[in-house]
Amino acid sequence: MKPINLFDYEALARQRIEPANWDFYQGGSDDEVTLRANRTAFERIRLRPRVLVDVSMIDMQTTVLGTPISMPIMVAPTATHRAAHPEGELATVRGVGAARTLMVASTVATTSLEDIMVAGRATECPLWFQLYVQQDLSISEGLVRRAEAAGYRAIVLTVDLPRLGNREKDKRNLFINPPPPLQAANFASEAERRIPFSRQLTWDSIAWLRGITKLPILVKGVLTAEDAELAIKHGVDGIIVSNHGGRQLDGVPATIEALPEVVEAVGGRCEVYVDGGIRRGTDVLKALALGARAVLIGRPIIWGLAVGGSEGVTDVLEILRAELELAMMLAGRPTLASIDRSLVKIMPY
Amino acid sequence: MKPINLFDYEALARQRIEPANWDFYQGGSDDEVTLRANRTAFERIRLRPRVLVDVSMIDMQTTVLGTPISMPIMVAPTATHRAAHPEGELATVRGVGAARTLMVASTVATTSLEDIMVAGRATECPLWFQLYVQQDLSISEGLVRRAEAAGYRAIVLTVDLPRLGNREKDKRNLFINPPPPLQAANFASEAERRIPFSRQLTWDSIAWLRGITKLPILVKGVLTAEDAELAIKHGVDGIIVSNHGGRQLDGVPATIEALPEVVEAVGGRCEVYVDGGIRRGTDVLKALALGARAVLIGRPIIWGLAVGGSEGVTDVLEILRAELELAMMLAGRPTLASIDRSLVKIMPY
Amino acid sequence: MKPINLFDYEALARQRIEPANWDFYQGGSDDEVTLRANRTAFERIRLRPRVLVDVSMIDMQTTVLGTPISMPIMVAPTATHRAAHPEGELATVRGVGAARTLMVASTVATTSLEDIMVAGRATECPLWFQLYVQQDLSISEGLVRRAEAAGYRAIVLTVDLPRLGNREKDKRNLFINPPPPLQAANFASEAERRIPFSRQLTWDSIAWLRGITKLPILVKGVLTAEDAELAIKHGVDGIIVSNHGGRQLDGVPATIEALPEVVEAVGGRCEVYVDGGIRRGTDVLKALALGARAVLIGRPIIWGLAVGGSEGVTDVLEILRAELELAMMLAGRPTLASIDRSLVKIMPY
Amino acid sequence: MKPINLFDYEALARQRIEPANWDFYQGGSDDEVTLRANRTAFERIRLRPRVLVDVSMIDMQTTVLGTPISMPIMVAPTATHRAAHPEGELATVRGVGAARTLMVASTVATTSLEDIMVAGRATECPLWFQLYVQQDLSISEGLVRRAEAAGYRAIVLTVDLPRLGNREKDKRNLFINPPPPLQAANFASEAERRIPFSRQLTWDSIAWLRGITKLPILVKGVLTAEDAELAIKHGVDGIIVSNHGGRQLDGVPATIEALPEVVEAVGGRCEVYVDGGIRRGTDVLKALALGARAVLIGRPIIWGLAVGGSEGVTDVLEILRAELELAMMLAGRPTLASIDRSLVKIMPY
Repeated sequence: MKPINLFDYEALARQRIEPANWDFYQGGSDDEVTLRANRTAFERIRLRPRVLVDVSMIDMQTTVLGTPISMPIMVAPTATHRAAHPEGELATVRGVGAARTLMVASTVATTSLEDIMVAGRATECPLWFQLYVQQDLSISEGLVRRAEAAGYRAIVLTVDLPRLGNREKDKRNLFINPPPPLQAANFASEAERRIPFSRQLTWDSIAWLRGITKLPILVKGVLTAEDAELAIKHGVDGIIVSNHGGRQLDGVPATIEALPEVVEAVGGRCEVYVDGGIRRGTDVLKALALGARAVLIGRPIIWGLAVGGSEGVTDVLEILRAELELAMMLAGRPTLASIDRSLVKIMPY
Repeated sequence: MKPINLFDYEALARQRIEPANWDFYQGGSDDEVTLRANRTAFERIRLRPRVLVDVSMIDMQTTVLGTPISMPIMVAPTATHRAAHPEGELATVRGVGAARTLMVASTVATTSLEDIMVAGRATECPLWFQLYVQQDLSISEGLVRRAEAAGYRAIVLTVDLPRLGNREKDKRNLFINPPPPLQAANFASEAERRIPFSRQLTWDSIAWLRGITKLPILVKGVLTAEDAELAIKHGVDGIIVSNHGGRQLDGVPATIEALPEVVEAVGGRCEVYVDGGIRRGTDVLKALALGARAVLIGRPIIWGLAVGGSEGVTDVLEILRAELELAMMLAGRPTLASIDRSLVKIMPY
Repeated sequence: MKPINLFDYEALARQRIEPANWDFYQGGSDDEVTLRANRTAFERIRLRPRVLVDVSMIDMQTTVLGTPISMPIMVAPTATHRAAHPEGELATVRGVGAARTLMVASTVATTSLEDIMVAGRATECPLWFQLYVQQDLSISEGLVRRAEAAGYRAIVLTVDLPRLGNREKDKRNLFINPPPPLQAANFASEAERRIPFSRQLTWDSIAWLRGITKLPILVKGVLTAEDAELAIKHGVDGIIVSNHGGRQLDGVPATIEALPEVVEAVGGRCEVYVDGGIRRGTDVLKALALGARAVLIGRPIIWGLAVGGSEGVTDVLEILRAELELAMMLAGRPTLASIDRSLVKIMPY
Repeated sequence: MKPINLFDYEALARQRIEPANWDFYQGGSDDEVTLRANRTAFERIRLRPRVLVDVSMIDMQTTVLGTPISMPIMVAPTATHRAAHPEGELATVRGVGAARTLMVASTVATTSLEDIMVAGRATECPLWFQLYVQQDLSISEGLVRRAEAAGYRAIVLTVDLPRLGNREKDKRNLFINPPPPLQAANFASEAERRIPFSRQLTWDSIAWLRGITKLPILVKGVLTAEDAELAIKHGVDGIIVSNHGGRQLDGVPATIEALPEVVEAVGGRCEVYVDGGIRRGTDVLKALALGARAVLIGRPIIWGLAVGGSEGVTDVLEILRAELELAMMLAGRPTLASIDRSLVKIMPY
């Protein structure tokens, strides 16, 4: 039957995606402690609903770095969409555009950033570009300049992957990412593609990035108040609280656990987003209550893509929108402005 | 064999109620986190029993808004009793009357409020009327006036259902509530029945309600101190701490978790009741110790009704009464007045 | 093979005791929350062992109300030993005497208190008499006078059973206690036996008891600081922290949880003991560290009795003694005096 | 396939080691509460990773009591290696040497300390000698003098085994340790071997040990701040926080739980190490963040030995090194000096 929630999409996608690719998408690092925590941490957060509030009009439109989106739910960067669906990122971006929200395109997409932009423009899907910086900075500089030229609205610098996490499922599968013949399309050659990611990125790298683009800069992968403070000091425009979907250092906090300390440290000086484990409208509501301006979802988009192409992507987003709308209504918070810290109570462990 | 506790009734009822109706009665919203919490939260509350107290006389008679009842256990409003038993609410009210306590009749009962009252009078069962306010206020006003005219003693305004929660079992069952040919009997026509519940109810709606009835007004669905304070400010006569049996917003606190903050905010300025997950006499005792004047039970009444009609309803209530009596005796609290906060210790998570 | 711990005895006993009797011995009340807590609460208590202490001599001899025993482990009163072994309490007392500790004989033993005493004298087993007070006080007075005359050294007044707890296994088994033809041997007639236990016992009843016996008086079943204070005020000689093995009010604390507040309230003014869930030498050590002068064990004695008669009883006690000896050695606490509060750390829930 | 983590080695080793020996290696005491806690306690510790740190050079070289080792991971003393592999400790020490770290040789090794040293020198493996003191001190003195003469660099005095813990698996297996014909090779005769370990060791024994050797002295088995203070007072050179792999007193804290209080009490006055349950590079990282200078691993070395002899031992250590390297990189802590308390957050129970 028609999937009615994101878990249904997960179950259906599992039947459609080749096992080794499935493991790649689903897996976490080491013992997957953080992967599981990303979900279970939401259960420890109670919603405190208010009643007898007029909820006849629910307004969840917002802006992210000035770009209007129809709901506080965006699409996180994920790799290799063609392994989930033959149309790959082109289907994704069309699906996202139809849901009137924003997508972050990945450096290691199986579609070039320019082609994604063409499809994005056709559906009015605003786009940010996720950047993995390679050891040869000139390659990365080229990507940034191309992204700016193509019309991307921001650069999302991933800061939690100086090296790939220990993903044991992939090791056991002898998994090659991307699986041939699907290659990261943004690179001019196999040689370029093979240049490792930089392990020498520092906060000074923000200045380098500022020097080559006028676009706003976000950092993705911050989990501590200390780094949030440094991000502000180095002038970033936004922070994405992320643990890379539990795929990098195992044992780090669930993102919803880390969000409060980042929000507090930032103190409104830049926008803060969060990804990781969001599967329900109530998860979005909890993230917003804890200070996120918007959330990003990753794996569920892959599930929607595998199950139904662009329509599947749209449906995943629309399910989440409908759940958030209902949750706002039942929580007595008809506007984003009415969602505040008093909506949640974090239960001790 | 004869059921000896409420869980026995649950098991037996499952065999008698048609699966889709069973799912409707039993189900919660989303992932049923709150539904489960309603039960598990009781296990975290320890009873501190006192010994060497004369418990030869146990007195659990009380009053609710001035109406005497034989025990601090009432019957919560639930929908569509004819789906559980052919005699529906008529059997229920007779069973409740025999147990000498009070029933809250539902707006969406499958028996008209007047017919319920006739049966209620026959067994001296005091009745309150639960009100869902529809978008066409005149319909709701009509219900309230009919309830007052019929002899209902209070109006219980449900405040946590501006829209139905996301009950996925019902979605998967393509469940129609009420299942044909069982219709909500209080309405004059199918058209009336189909008018959606209002999403524009606010605290000012209390004044509207005051304007059309002299009956005491309770609000059902309060879970926070803030709303308890507003309820007092708007002059309600009673508050029912409820999460609609875990069927509305998933992730809200267990009711027994929310009760203390509501009781504290109210500070004795009105009566406070609680429903949700009560299955044992010790659960009732814990709720009373945390400040509830009485509790209400919902699903167990349906189970009793399905298993044994009015006698099943009575038996469910008598089992609970006997358990409460034993619990009061073993806790060294022979009167309701002797049950205070020192009887319980809430274990941290 | 030979049982090496108390759990082995439990498994073997299950094969030897008739199922309905087994359920009677093993069962708790309601949902057995407290029964389970009695065990699991021990896991939350960490032992903080000290090293490089001379442990070549372990001394665990102690006195209870002045009576010397070879270890701080006594035998709790339990009913109906003849249902576990044909020699019943006579075997038990011989087994306890061989282990050089004290037994509390039950009012509802299947052997008369005088016969138990005869067997006790033969093995130099000191005895206390557990008293259930019946509604006809003259019957109870008679028991107390007989116990004093026979040579019992103290009266243990059970204060947590104004009525039997809700033991559902027994209800389902239509269990009659004691199972015919085994009858409580202390009574002169079936009529005497059938007189219910008093529900009118109060702290003033201590004075009544004082008036009819010169023996020291203990109260068994105290779980709160408030009642510990009252016990002191009414001049009791000892307190047994007990929840009746999880068989009376379900939801009360594990005894090892309640022990600290009782010990603190008593402040050394009388001796405090504890029973409930003790199965390991380390459990005994934890109880001593939390202020118990000695512990009592109930069900494991029944297991030993069923498996090996008096020798089984002795073996159960000797296993526990050996475990305690090893635990004292490994904890660096060679004497009872060296066991203090610093030995334990209670983990939060 | 090739094992990729330590759990793989565990699974493979289980197939190669004779069941009774397997139980001996794997088992804990009593109910194995502490054995399990040694692992689960790590899950309650969250890593707080820092980003945008130059991690192109990871430096994990350190010294222990002045001896340089290539990583802060050493090999704990364990018994009877010939039961895991025919080459026994000789294979182990070669494997450890190849990994350029230090091994602690056991008093009850199945290879003489001199032979171990010969093999150790061949691979430049630094060695410490673990000492069980027997009741006849002259035997122990002989061992210490031989160890010093052979070139061992420190004496590790085990302080938590005045008697063997209650290892029930071994009891049920009628296990004899060491299994014949494998004998502790350090003793001149069966008579020597049979002399029990001393139960009269005290802190004054440190002075005795100081009197017979110039080597640095460590105590292994400290779990409390009080004993850490005494260790400092008695001039030990190092402390190993250990619970003997959960094999001695059951119910003591996980070592990673006990580490903070020992580190705090020591306050930098000697080096502190920890063993127990370390299976992942992130476990090592957590231990370092909580103040350990290095960790020791026990059972995993046996697994490597059983699976692949000396190469298996090396591989186990190299896997752990690689995991630690990756963890340091992903945590943004490229040097040991950069690993501090702010890296971890301990979640309440």
